[in-house]
Amino acid sequence: MVDRLVVVGGDAAGMGAASQARRSNPALEIVALERGPYTSYSACGIPYLVAGDVASVDDLVARTPEEFRANQRIDVRMGHEVVGVDLDARTLDVRDLERQRSIRMPFDQLLFGTGARPIRPDLPGIDADWIHGVQTLQDGERLLAAARSSGCRNVVVVGAGYVGLEMAEAFYRWGAKVVLLDANDTCMARTLDPDMGGQLADVVRGLGVEVRLGERVTGFAEGAVVTERGSVPADLVVLGLGVQPNSELAGAAGVTLGARDAIQVDARQQTNVEGVWAAGDCADTYDLMARRRVHIALGTVANRTARVAGLNIGGAYARFPGVVGTAVTKVCGTEVARTGMTETAAHAAGFDFVVARIEATGRAGYFPGAEPMTVKLLAEKVTGRVLGAQIVGGADSAKRIDTVATILHAGMDVAQVIDLDLSYAPPFSPVWDPVQVAARKALSLLNAA
Amino acid sequence: MVDRLVVVGGDAAGMGAASQARRSNPALEIVALERGPYTSYSACGIPYLVAGDVASVDDLVARTPEEFRANQRIDVRMGHEVVGVDLDARTLDVRDLERQRSIRMPFDQLLFGTGARPIRPDLPGIDADWIHGVQTLQDGERLLAAARSSGCRNVVVVGAGYVGLEMAEAFYRWGAKVVLLDANDTCMARTLDPDMGGQLADVVRGLGVEVRLGERVTGFAEGAVVTERGSVPADLVVLGLGVQPNSELAGAAGVTLGARDAIQVDARQQTNVEGVWAAGDCADTYDLMARRRVHIALGTVANRTARVAGLNIGGAYARFPGVVGTAVTKVCGTEVARTGMTETAAHAAGFDFVVARIEATGRAGYFPGAEPMTVKLLAEKVTGRVLGAQIVGGADSAKRIDTVATILHAGMDVAQVIDLDLSYAPPFSPVWDPVQVAARKALSLLNAA
Repeated sequence: MVDRLVVVGGDAAGMGAASQARRSNPALEIVALERGPYTSYSACGIPYLVAGDVASVDDLVARTPEEFRANQRIDVRMGHEVVGVDLDARTLDVRDLERQRSIRMPFDQLLFGTGARPIRPDLPGIDADWIHGVQTLQDGERLLAAARSSGCRNVVVVGAGYVGLEMAEAFYRWGAKVVLLDANDTCMARTLDPDMGGQLADVVRGLGVEVRLGERVTGFAEGAVVTERGSVPADLVVLGLGVQPNSELAGAAGVTLGARDAIQVDARQQTNVEGVWAAGDCADTYDLMARRRVHIALGTVANRTARVAGLNIGGAYARFPGVVGTAVTKVCGTEVARTGMTETAAHAAGFDFVVARIEATGRAGYFPGAEPMTVKLLAEKVTGRVLGAQIVGGADSAKRIDTVATILHAGMDVAQVIDLDLSYAPPFSPVWDPVQVAARKALSLLNAA
Repeated sequence: MVDRLVVVGGDAAGMGAASQARRSNPALEIVALERGPYTSYSACGIPYLVAGDVASVDDLVARTPEEFRANQRIDVRMGHEVVGVDLDARTLDVRDLERQRSIRMPFDQLLFGTGARPIRPDLPGIDADWIHGVQTLQDGERLLAAARSSGCRNVVVVGAGYVGLEMAEAFYRWGAKVVLLDANDTCMARTLDPDMGGQLADVVRGLGVEVRLGERVTGFAEGAVVTERGSVPADLVVLGLGVQPNSELAGAAGVTLGARDAIQVDARQQTNVEGVWAAGDCADTYDLMARRRVHIALGTVANRTARVAGLNIGGAYARFPGVVGTAVTKVCGTEVARTGMTETAAHAAGFDFVVARIEATGRAGYFPGAEPMTVKLLAEKVTGRVLGAQIVGGADSAKRIDTVATILHAGMDVAQVIDLDLSYAPPFSPVWDPVQVAARKALSLLNAA
């Protein structure tokens, strides 16, 4: 008898795992259930859709249901919501939303690719229809319509993380008056150290966005966001407070939950139940630097964990080693990147380390268009091992974080970084790459320590 | 008694080693002898000076003799040429070119940083004054004057390597009719495989540069370059045939020469003579991938080997592990990068490997300004280890070679590359970085092999 894989969720994780499982096992029967109208879309692209950089919502759809059906023999069913899982009977209760009927569907293997949803704290008035999360393409369409509308002049973005910053820029570029509110004292407080986050806050302020930090939102009134310090006029609110995993379905069925209530998986992306897997934003993952399980909802992690899950479902043996916490974004002309541990996190974890902070340029200093960047690099005192890095700078700066991410995976020390044969030509880099300039600074601090 | 270090050559290698030695040993007496008028300049910047990207020759000088004297107590003597070395007596014969007098100078430690010079093959007429190498700032000034002159309409560039391509672009941008000649069948034949070099040749042809490959130059006549196929009109010729190390002084003194007659050094940058060191373009170095000594004249290698030499001279213990052969350049909007072994080199070295060649974009495919790139990646069959990569593409492509260079230093296999936590956001990358797309292709080829 042919095994049946059922995938719950038709976005990057679900369809990535389904596609990989198909490649690994041509005989598998594969059903993918998606409650919404889109498969495999780029949620990361929504801020750029709203900003007007991306012409159409269709551009954000990597592959349509028809393509999955035709090219990969995946039985994709749109508008199908899974409402219950019986792990003993190995069946799903599925609601066909269009036909308004229920189906009981048996499975041999099951993959949760249910994703995550924007956090909506339990505040008075938060369920009003002018308060938007940023997750689905429908969210993107609604926000774009609002941005284009002349009635939308006062926009308040709550949360100065990646999504909040990107959305602040999007509305700023449409000419709205934008207020960016965050209860923390800097931008991107969860992922950048205060010095780097502060540098970024200055950039955003320089654009003309009002950045109000250390100010907690207490609720929403008619046409205003209420904070502990007063009231901020708002035609529209964007929530950028992070996401929480859609793990309730799995949890209710008896699947063990892990970090931040994400579905706990092993290195093969299998849950505590044999043949039941999870990948992407609904699952937890392993942080190679902090050496603990974490919840990181990023497209890169979703795609990589989906691949591993799909290989295992298809009969191969694959392990996902974990992440080092790499992320990158852009606020107008300013690029931001980070990987590994921040100073804050490394202190909390009890590391003994030096912090090198350097200024460099993305091209040879004399080359036209050379823009400044700040690189902050942490190195452990006894071993010299690189622990993490953060970059804030102009053009050509952020993607250098990939070198550091690779360094972290390899466990290199700063002396090894200095000797790396990185590329140089005047349009691309100073002769010592900024990452190496930071490593040299760190080495001299280690020698002096 | 205070030791005296004498550095021969005041460019990147010599002054880099002198500066590092000063930091490591404040007591050292340091003399730097330079026969020309400039210290520490960026020869890599000359094509951009000629193209008009860089406003002044002074912009290419990283530090002046006065700065070295004032800030680092290095006794820099310009217009001083070393004409003989007595390794037994540990003295130099130095010619003071301005005062027209000779000096005998004792040393305790000696560093050769004598650089390299453009290869001028022994062809009839090659010594004419309209046939230029590209090495010194004076070369740059002469070429810029020629480019600006209305009498310079027909430019022939001999050799389609980095410098040849960059100079072809520079003169093309001044409106000259440019012919690029190379005896090989593709561009960058020594550093790229024919498929990638061919792609680059198409780009250069698309600019309107006449690219004549597989055509050997046999000599130079009045106003023309003579080839085996005929005669090409030329007001000016640029030689881009690579460089040869300035190692004659060291060789004549009895220092052992190595790869391509460069000064042979050990991992500490010491020659066969105790206390006599070499760094930069005059020295050989170790190729970590090919596992043999090579001569690579690049600013990155010069700076890194100078640092190691300076540390050792100053009393520290430092080793230079070697290079993986990373290089990058740009021809108008097209970026080119390479690291590790080419297919050609890997075949010659007897490796058994797969070749993955993929097309990707530098940003998310739907993001404005996403430009295509080709990534070619080699992986060894038994181990899966990455052996090298080449990239030809538009904006945002070339610097990705640094990820591969780091991968090569770490000895990672393609499966490890797929799991690397590289950065992604729509303005910076597709969700799978092109390097990882190539690694995925390589893995599937390895699995199929």
